Amino acid sequence: MSVLLEFAMFPVDKGESVSPYVSKIIKMIRDSGVTYQLTPMGTIIETETMAEALAIVQQSYDVLEPDCDRVYSTLTIDVRKGKSKCLTGKVLSVEKIIGKVNK
Amino acid sequence: MSVLLEFAMFPVDKGESVSPYVSKIIKMIRDSGVTYQLTPMGTIIETETMAEALAIVQQSYDVLEPDCDRVYSTLTIDVRKGKSKCLTGKVLSVEKIIGKVNK
Amino acid sequence: MSVLLEFAMFPVDKGESVSPYVSKIIKMIRDSGVTYQLTPMGTIIETETMAEALAIVQQSYDVLEPDCDRVYSTLTIDVRKGKSKCLTGKVLSVEKIIGKVNK
Amino acid sequence: MSVLLEFAMFPVDKGESVSPYVSKIIKMIRDSGVTYQLTPMGTIIETETMAEALAIVQQSYDVLEPDCDRVYSTLTIDVRKGKSKCLTGKVLSVEKIIGKVNK
Repeated sequence: MSVLLEFAMFPVDKGESVSPYVSKIIKMIRDSGVTYQLTPMGTIIETETMAEALAIVQQSYDVLEPDCDRVYSTLTIDVRKGKSKCLTGKVLSVEKIIGKVNK
Repeated sequence: MSVLLEFAMFPVDKGESVSPYVSKIIKMIRDSGVTYQLTPMGTIIETETMAEALAIVQQSYDVLEPDCDRVYSTLTIDVRKGKSKCLTGKVLSVEKIIGKVNK
Repeated sequence: MSVLLEFAMFPVDKGESVSPYVSKIIKMIRDSGVTYQLTPMGTIIETETMAEALAIVQQSYDVLEPDCDRVYSTLTIDVRKGKSKCLTGKVLSVEKIIGKVNK
Repeated sequence: MSVLLEFAMFPVDKGESVSPYVSKIIKMIRDSGVTYQLTPMGTIIETETMAEALAIVQQSYDVLEPDCDRVYSTLTIDVRKGKSKCLTGKVLSVEKIIGKVNK
């Protein structure tokens, strides 16, 4: 099974520059050993179960919780049975059809 | 603390009519006793902790898992310390400023 | 055709209390005459074309633009050909299956 | 001004494999000349105005409309005045704080 979860999570009460907070979350994810990709709009992780993916969301909130009174988060999840390595495979399956996409 | 979590979750491999699947999730939520509101675009739940909110997401997936090979989900989460009853309070706080909104 | 668009839009550079800004958007939507429903997590509008729905998103940004340096928005769109009144119909189609949901 | 818009758009009535449809959208975006990045969970575009970004969303729907009876889309938008090149800059600003992230 492949669980792809993309999420953005940030404080609403800390002004316009949220990268110090986002960085703490990315550091935790990097240290966790989970397969991930940081994009300009969020972080995508790939896990084998929904429980593992949701645990990363919980841990991300735990990173922000001590400092932030209001936290907002958006997530999209795509779960596929009988699939793996979708983090790399999904872009490739588009490139198979229309050729190279990202430069 | 108030955790408002809105989510939509549905199978992608079952064709256009997904309400039988969505209904199973809503039934589970209604039976769980959690505070919730069904909207035309998703379900909003209010819990006191992030863990309780994420547990409902897990249980929703568990409802669909036996029948569905691909499940897609979108979520938004708004966590506020020192607040409660945001499920009813947020619409009221807008109405305090501009008057009655929904008919 | 039915276009259901749910969106939340708020400034990130104005601190924790964003309801004054959200209220301006809701007021614009209410005055526009479009079919809408305010929920605790966003506003759902129903239009007959994608263009009308996206015009409301543009106008919402125009409301915030003069005052805000950073604006964040999340949206979900559900477009169905050959359907209408989905704003009320979607909750009803769940209730047909499992009975009354919202109190 | 920098408008970062990430979106996923796909038919719900075409079964589990939606990459033929997604590929048509990516091809249109690539041909349009807009700055973009395809990720495993969506496509991120960067434009200078909200209007340009929403026009791409409209054109994406126009690509799917002839073939699809039901289309679902999720979007997140991050608009910043006085910024540019956020498509590359946001990951870099995290890397400035915690070092290299993506391998």
